[in-house]
Amino acid sequence: MTTTRVAVAGASGYAGGEVLRLLLGHPSVEIGALTGGSNAGQRLGTLQPHLLPLADRVLEPTELDVLAGHDVVVLGLPHGQSGEIAAALPDDVVVIDCGADFRLQDAGEWERFYGGSHAGTWPYGLPELPGQRELLRGATRIAVPGCYPTVSTLTLAPAVAAGLVEPDVVVVAASGTSGAGKAAKPHLLGSEVMGNASAYGVGGVHRHTPEITQNLSGLVEGEVSVSFTPLLVPMSRGILATCSARLADGVTAERAREVYEQAYAAEPFVHLLPDGLWPQTQSVLGSNAVHVQVTVDEHARRLVAVGAVDNLAKGTGGAAVQCMNLALGLDEGLGLTSVGIAP
Amino acid sequence: MTTTRVAVAGASGYAGGEVLRLLLGHPSVEIGALTGGSNAGQRLGTLQPHLLPLADRVLEPTELDVLAGHDVVVLGLPHGQSGEIAAALPDDVVVIDCGADFRLQDAGEWERFYGGSHAGTWPYGLPELPGQRELLRGATRIAVPGCYPTVSTLTLAPAVAAGLVEPDVVVVAASGTSGAGKAAKPHLLGSEVMGNASAYGVGGVHRHTPEITQNLSGLVEGEVSVSFTPLLVPMSRGILATCSARLADGVTAERAREVYEQAYAAEPFVHLLPDGLWPQTQSVLGSNAVHVQVTVDEHARRLVAVGAVDNLAKGTGGAAVQCMNLALGLDEGLGLTSVGIAP
Amino acid sequence: MTTTRVAVAGASGYAGGEVLRLLLGHPSVEIGALTGGSNAGQRLGTLQPHLLPLADRVLEPTELDVLAGHDVVVLGLPHGQSGEIAAALPDDVVVIDCGADFRLQDAGEWERFYGGSHAGTWPYGLPELPGQRELLRGATRIAVPGCYPTVSTLTLAPAVAAGLVEPDVVVVAASGTSGAGKAAKPHLLGSEVMGNASAYGVGGVHRHTPEITQNLSGLVEGEVSVSFTPLLVPMSRGILATCSARLADGVTAERAREVYEQAYAAEPFVHLLPDGLWPQTQSVLGSNAVHVQVTVDEHARRLVAVGAVDNLAKGTGGAAVQCMNLALGLDEGLGLTSVGIAP
Amino acid sequence: MTTTRVAVAGASGYAGGEVLRLLLGHPSVEIGALTGGSNAGQRLGTLQPHLLPLADRVLEPTELDVLAGHDVVVLGLPHGQSGEIAAALPDDVVVIDCGADFRLQDAGEWERFYGGSHAGTWPYGLPELPGQRELLRGATRIAVPGCYPTVSTLTLAPAVAAGLVEPDVVVVAASGTSGAGKAAKPHLLGSEVMGNASAYGVGGVHRHTPEITQNLSGLVEGEVSVSFTPLLVPMSRGILATCSARLADGVTAERAREVYEQAYAAEPFVHLLPDGLWPQTQSVLGSNAVHVQVTVDEHARRLVAVGAVDNLAKGTGGAAVQCMNLALGLDEGLGLTSVGIAP
Repeated sequence: MTTTRVAVAGASGYAGGEVLRLLLGHPSVEIGALTGGSNAGQRLGTLQPHLLPLADRVLEPTELDVLAGHDVVVLGLPHGQSGEIAAALPDDVVVIDCGADFRLQDAGEWERFYGGSHAGTWPYGLPELPGQRELLRGATRIAVPGCYPTVSTLTLAPAVAAGLVEPDVVVVAASGTSGAGKAAKPHLLGSEVMGNASAYGVGGVHRHTPEITQNLSGLVEGEVSVSFTPLLVPMSRGILATCSARLADGVTAERAREVYEQAYAAEPFVHLLPDGLWPQTQSVLGSNAVHVQVTVDEHARRLVAVGAVDNLAKGTGGAAVQCMNLALGLDEGLGLTSVGIAP
Repeated sequence: MTTTRVAVAGASGYAGGEVLRLLLGHPSVEIGALTGGSNAGQRLGTLQPHLLPLADRVLEPTELDVLAGHDVVVLGLPHGQSGEIAAALPDDVVVIDCGADFRLQDAGEWERFYGGSHAGTWPYGLPELPGQRELLRGATRIAVPGCYPTVSTLTLAPAVAAGLVEPDVVVVAASGTSGAGKAAKPHLLGSEVMGNASAYGVGGVHRHTPEITQNLSGLVEGEVSVSFTPLLVPMSRGILATCSARLADGVTAERAREVYEQAYAAEPFVHLLPDGLWPQTQSVLGSNAVHVQVTVDEHARRLVAVGAVDNLAKGTGGAAVQCMNLALGLDEGLGLTSVGIAP
Repeated sequence: MTTTRVAVAGASGYAGGEVLRLLLGHPSVEIGALTGGSNAGQRLGTLQPHLLPLADRVLEPTELDVLAGHDVVVLGLPHGQSGEIAAALPDDVVVIDCGADFRLQDAGEWERFYGGSHAGTWPYGLPELPGQRELLRGATRIAVPGCYPTVSTLTLAPAVAAGLVEPDVVVVAASGTSGAGKAAKPHLLGSEVMGNASAYGVGGVHRHTPEITQNLSGLVEGEVSVSFTPLLVPMSRGILATCSARLADGVTAERAREVYEQAYAAEPFVHLLPDGLWPQTQSVLGSNAVHVQVTVDEHARRLVAVGAVDNLAKGTGGAAVQCMNLALGLDEGLGLTSVGIAP
Repeated sequence: MTTTRVAVAGASGYAGGEVLRLLLGHPSVEIGALTGGSNAGQRLGTLQPHLLPLADRVLEPTELDVLAGHDVVVLGLPHGQSGEIAAALPDDVVVIDCGADFRLQDAGEWERFYGGSHAGTWPYGLPELPGQRELLRGATRIAVPGCYPTVSTLTLAPAVAAGLVEPDVVVVAASGTSGAGKAAKPHLLGSEVMGNASAYGVGGVHRHTPEITQNLSGLVEGEVSVSFTPLLVPMSRGILATCSARLADGVTAERAREVYEQAYAAEPFVHLLPDGLWPQTQSVLGSNAVHVQVTVDEHARRLVAVGAVDNLAKGTGGAAVQCMNLALGLDEGLGLTSVGIAP
């Protein structure tokens, strides 16, 4: 197996750290340059004490000459920063962006939700979407999905694509805090989040709304309306997405399970749980798996589907590695696992 | 002020414990007999170490002769046990049931969701429902609402009553573990719940569904359809209910806030937060307050409202004390507070 | 009862917030000016959403003219700031400092552990120390103890004072995060503290070490040597202090309990638990109580004592109110409770 | 590489589950029979939903004929059950017991702390103890250490062995709940542990005391006295052990670090952190690493050392796999990692 040299920009953040954690277990990767912004010059051991084998690595500045000479460059930077770097890297280098800059297709949606000008659109890093895997094989630019969109999309896609529901979905997603990153914001202090559940970005204003909309609308004719509410709950990793929509006529629970079984039977990382078992984020902690379950609320005439993901693993770093494998023509699951860490 | 003698049955459980915690701070209550089932004979100090002033009380058996001679009897027993005891207590004793037995109006719904025969229907202990306060004044039998129904109802009632939405609501409620009680069930072990979020009772099967439906349907002509999904998140107290429904024509965010302001301006315990602030369970921990916020998702054309409650306080014990005050003709807020314990 | 006008400086912090939470339940206090540094001009409702009755109060700058005209001024400011303000307030105003500036007797120790010049020494706000209550009655300057010193001292004082142990104690105290305050420091992020236990300030360097030493040494001839290690554990409130020391000759478990019983029998807020029950921080959450237990490790010939406190309640704000009551000649427990919030 | 067939008894418990999680990532292991007591007949997917690849395995009864025909049998059973099974398995089968039955050398200590008769003594599964690795190479019976003894021993061993301290150590170890196992005991309920820190087994009565004593005493002449206090803190995995002892004459911080560096420089899994960095359990979550740090409290004249371990990984299942590798003559670290899962 050829060795792939990978550089990680933003190595001191949660996204970069998760990518590195997974690359350390990847059999054909050589970890190259690690860069940080304000952290350049520091030992990684101080910033990411869990990545022991890389403890003595010194963070370099996020500059082109540092990132040059690698086969793959993974970007774990604040949004708005990826575009410039990516534009300057050679076309044959595989650039994987964990940030939002290249996820959206519509420039108007980008400007409306993120502000600033739209950097562009890269192949979307969700291989489980119909037709997406082929687009990612051999790709040299990949946009890793947002964590909420990953689990929301995977939890609803089969129902939407098969016309089991009206194109009008409601998603309430309970997330741990690591999705908010490592920046020291007051509302993310331990004292503010422990023993506390809260909603934020309510009313269709959260930046992941257009991404979920784009993903689900891409499965059908016309637009799928998405009502998305994120919640912050007292844990570090994990998102549990509770999704529902009005049933189309005649849809039964059995039909729903049948559709999900077909959709995911061949997928290495998305698992429809056995009837009666409901997803728990603990079961997928540290793993690239997504657990899904679906049922029908007969009385309310709604399909209800729940999905669990580790926002840093399959929600960010795991997706990056999975897409890197596809881009390089490697076994898609190299360095990844479906086994969670529990309890 | 006359002193009211109060007995608490099920004093070793979470509901009974919360009632006692509040009664200890009530200026005109004398705490009488404390009973337990399997715990009879034990010192309360071993079972409820936080209730220090009652540490030396010995739990008595839950029997009529023990409960006799009190002005008020609060029942914190497993469901199915209240009916017999209540039937045998004198009519002029105020009996307040924290359990489910007398909450539902429809015997069919009781049998369908709880099994066994329907014990009956008592005045429903949610004074904030239109007209309900008068029914509770001087009542001698009161059914304390379930915790999820309390917060879901209060969060949606103004919108439903004012016709702001179609009668088809979706509720996803993230709860701490104390709502499940003190029984040692494997899935409630600390190792199973910490670092974990999960959904349960999915698809309209949760017992609180008919209760929420009953409450909201009582506000309008016809039935309100309720899709209810509870989630378990890693904290002990608190429920954050995220509720939404399709908007009726022409409803704006301003109109929605106006309706909620009018609905709750005079309510001592339900508070519509200032525009832009969203409820957090930590803000109401240990208090009888419910924080609510409402907005409109223009794009998805849905009203989204979020409510936070402490499931043991206003969700159970606080409601019991609030209703006791109404039943006895006392100031409704005696022994209760709107101030939470944070951080 | 005369009404006491109280101003709180640093009303947006955790210490100030806890003082306010307790004052809101105090029967003879009128809450006056609330001040903040960088938060001046903001509504308290945005910063302390749990203090609902004070939501519309606007924070004023921490200036003398704002603090003037009150009977009591409570300071919840970063250390180093209290001295100036206190010096300028009239001698007959009761000034209670929740910060460290006036806790230590020894200027050398202050400079060694805190840097900067020693502001002075005020009556130490721990009424449970022998002789201390009398010093606080009618005092007009009071230094509230640090949270770790409060629980460590109360847990060890009886044993040290009675000569049950050699003057060489070891304290390991597991604390929630709120003791570190509201400043947004990276290591205090929810993602960094949840699912994580860590030690800090190891080796005798933590600032509370000289304070614990001062307290225990004041009970005997000569100095008591203190080895203090604080730990950060995943909760918001609470400190559990595990304290031990070599037994003096002939000391038995029975003798130890006898000594502790005598020491605390008459204390309203410090409780020796019944034999066999060990302190839990949850039992004292939100309350002014400290739970203590003591035993003897026969084999290792050490006395082991454990204490639990709520660091924000009796550890900070509760102590402030308790001392305020003493200073004003009120019932010491006014506005305070021994009842915790559990589960 | 030959494939090793491994059976796991007690596959539904936390110990068994962790062993399986690690074996799933072991390159030369074939997972054979999985047994459970009361759970026999159930699908593993219901009991251990995170072990997806084994979801369809059906638990068999823990019987000899089921365990026969394997190269390695790992026992994750309640104590007292291992002896009988082990005695009946062939001598050339490698039997690794995660339980306590064969850890202690002294029958008197076993009876005193565990009750019942002493099953015997097997090679102790802590390769990092001086001389121990050689005893484990090719062994066919191995007793995996207790979790608290693992981290306490590794944290203190270098200091004790080098005579840096008096033979009188104090250990206070803060642990997550998973160490208490999966049995549904009331005090382990999420509502009882979240937001709560407590001490238990205080006073030298905890069963791991004689094991820590045995390990440390084995390093020197004479007995090392151990005062051990375990604490329960609100997390699922992890133990942070704070250990101290009086310094022998003339010991400095530099000398202490030197001793620890020498002791652990060549150890694959025990890491002395760089000067100034203190262990955090989050850094070793899911990994076989132990992080250690040591310093000297000049004033109190004590050596203070802190260690962090994942109680289920290196504390139980990781140690089992590490010892299995040694027993089979494989690379010691096969299937194990030093990389933790953080945040």
